[in-house]
Amino acid sequence: MRWLAQVCEYWPLKRLAAITDADVEAVLKSYPGTGAAAGGPASWRGAGDKLPGHGQTGRVILAGSGPGHPDLLTRATYKAIQTADIILADKLVPAGVLDLIPRRTPVSIARKFPGNADRAQEELLEQALDGVRAGKTVLRLKQGDPFIYGRGGEEVAFFREKGLGDCVVVLPGITSSLSAPLFAGIPPTQRDVADQVLVCTGTGKKGKAPQPPEYVESRTVVFLMALHRIEGLVAELTAYTDEEEQRAREGRSQTEEAEAAQTPSHQQPGKRRTLWPLNTPCAVIERASCPDQRVIRTTLRFVAEAIEQEGSRPPGLLVVGRACEALYTPEKGRSWAVEDGFKGLDLDVESGVGIGGVGIAGMA
Amino acid sequence: MRWLAQVCEYWPLKRLAAITDADVEAVLKSYPGTGAAAGGPASWRGAGDKLPGHGQTGRVILAGSGPGHPDLLTRATYKAIQTADIILADKLVPAGVLDLIPRRTPVSIARKFPGNADRAQEELLEQALDGVRAGKTVLRLKQGDPFIYGRGGEEVAFFREKGLGDCVVVLPGITSSLSAPLFAGIPPTQRDVADQVLVCTGTGKKGKAPQPPEYVESRTVVFLMALHRIEGLVAELTAYTDEEEQRAREGRSQTEEAEAAQTPSHQQPGKRRTLWPLNTPCAVIERASCPDQRVIRTTLRFVAEAIEQEGSRPPGLLVVGRACEALYTPEKGRSWAVEDGFKGLDLDVESGVGIGGVGIAGMA
Repeated sequence: MRWLAQVCEYWPLKRLAAITDADVEAVLKSYPGTGAAAGGPASWRGAGDKLPGHGQTGRVILAGSGPGHPDLLTRATYKAIQTADIILADKLVPAGVLDLIPRRTPVSIARKFPGNADRAQEELLEQALDGVRAGKTVLRLKQGDPFIYGRGGEEVAFFREKGLGDCVVVLPGITSSLSAPLFAGIPPTQRDVADQVLVCTGTGKKGKAPQPPEYVESRTVVFLMALHRIEGLVAELTAYTDEEEQRAREGRSQTEEAEAAQTPSHQQPGKRRTLWPLNTPCAVIERASCPDQRVIRTTLRFVAEAIEQEGSRPPGLLVVGRACEALYTPEKGRSWAVEDGFKGLDLDVESGVGIGGVGIAGMA
Repeated sequence: MRWLAQVCEYWPLKRLAAITDADVEAVLKSYPGTGAAAGGPASWRGAGDKLPGHGQTGRVILAGSGPGHPDLLTRATYKAIQTADIILADKLVPAGVLDLIPRRTPVSIARKFPGNADRAQEELLEQALDGVRAGKTVLRLKQGDPFIYGRGGEEVAFFREKGLGDCVVVLPGITSSLSAPLFAGIPPTQRDVADQVLVCTGTGKKGKAPQPPEYVESRTVVFLMALHRIEGLVAELTAYTDEEEQRAREGRSQTEEAEAAQTPSHQQPGKRRTLWPLNTPCAVIERASCPDQRVIRTTLRFVAEAIEQEGSRPPGLLVVGRACEALYTPEKGRSWAVEDGFKGLDLDVESGVGIGGVGIAGMA
């Protein structure tokens, strides 16, 4: 019954509760070799479908749904949700966003589970292709922004290969890589503190560690897909890898090595990759903009220990750099601080609740 | 009459046409020393004002308006525009966004002109403070995202110093640094092409050149505030500065120098800053998401010449990295290509016009 657990995990309760026998039938039929009609998957053929005109081409709207809160959708994506003929959503599109889809609109949610991501992606793209060729407006709804680790570029390329490049519209979304810091009260660029922000991944291709970014004092770095290997990542940021050590030994004289040993390695500009000081402020931000948002504020020295002790609540990301303390002053003697809950998006003037600040404790 | 030219440049025609004698009176009165009532500027006291209750505290919503197109507002910011008691907008907030403001809502637009930015910022903050203390909901509307070069962090700090930190809500916006590449069909991260994106400024503090970011093959770099000094920027990216040359000479033996001369400098990992190859693809994107959007696609070798010949249409930014050619294949023998016009946000199904693709010519 692993599939049942996965369905329960990925689909919101409201959607599960609304499933009918016909839906189940359609989903089962959509799997290859189980009796699906020739011409493609049938799961999205719902009651609201219009009969397309002959020779009419539809279009694909590739849109980002933002980090979680439905009010963080752009107006353009919201309009697309309201008007699309079919919606093909990625697994991680937040429930609050899915709730905005009109009941008449057929929705497919990617069947992405570990080891199946590529196949699930192909399946959605084939469904989208069928829809466009049938003259429909297909909304490919992705989390965050479609071009920031969203495989959006691959989808554009796919439709071009099919001669349908002109039918694709791409809409940006609020990316969690920049909005999660914002909701944690961290301005990634702040005068006199940070003048640049690097968004990168903590996990490389095939799980291999990517080349760690060098330390730049005025840089804020946002690491996505990094929390499950936080200890390794911190080690790479704050010390040379074995490979680097070897390269350095080969390229430098003994005298230089001896000299280097006298000064902290991150103070040798231009020699090797500049290392991140262990006292660099950082923050782990999980489920940004959702009611169960959590922020752990600490430094590179303690972040792995903090995550080990506090546990992990994916999805989350790591922000590193002095900007983490631009609006936050850590309490002396504490290795880390945990802030639970999301404050600061409820604009409902009538309710008067949940207004709060940007959710920052411990300020100066 | 320089002030008149500036007003005409910064304010949309619709707003200018709607100005009444009373508005002019109020604006003039709001300047210090010209008869403003004690208790602060009067320019935002419009017809829609409610009388605040005694002791009631309002709030400040610090929100980003996105890159230009009004449909790129988030739903949260749109709601804030519809419900705020007062709106204090930055100069560059797009006209299409200002048009969404209800007529009853008093609006101030920052009087930022060269040499006056800090004073204009202070003025807006003081107006906001008066509004909050009077129990009003004040919307500080900024272009793009308030925490990406938007001075948003400084504004949060300002209200905290006044003991009003809890009254501040920060809303993210679509930043042009990531959406301009998207609208030019450039996915800043694309599998097998780029796994990281760096947003930085091409102009440092007090006009000084910032330290140029080193070359990383899998990195996309977005340079803001760079086009007016494009030649200098390209020189810094593709060759060592005099200072670096000197530092290198002091730190290396003549033998090493001689060896280094044999291999291209960007192929020497770990020695000095890695330089950007001149054939690195890049794109200049101006007025992203606006009807007069323009994209110039070229390489670092030709970008300065291209801008010189084609002219500059601010605001614009420079994107550098292999991602610029992820969905675009340059025409052989051409040094650069210019694409005019914005395609790809009109979701009005009825009109059926302006749908287009992501605006990419010359694709493979």
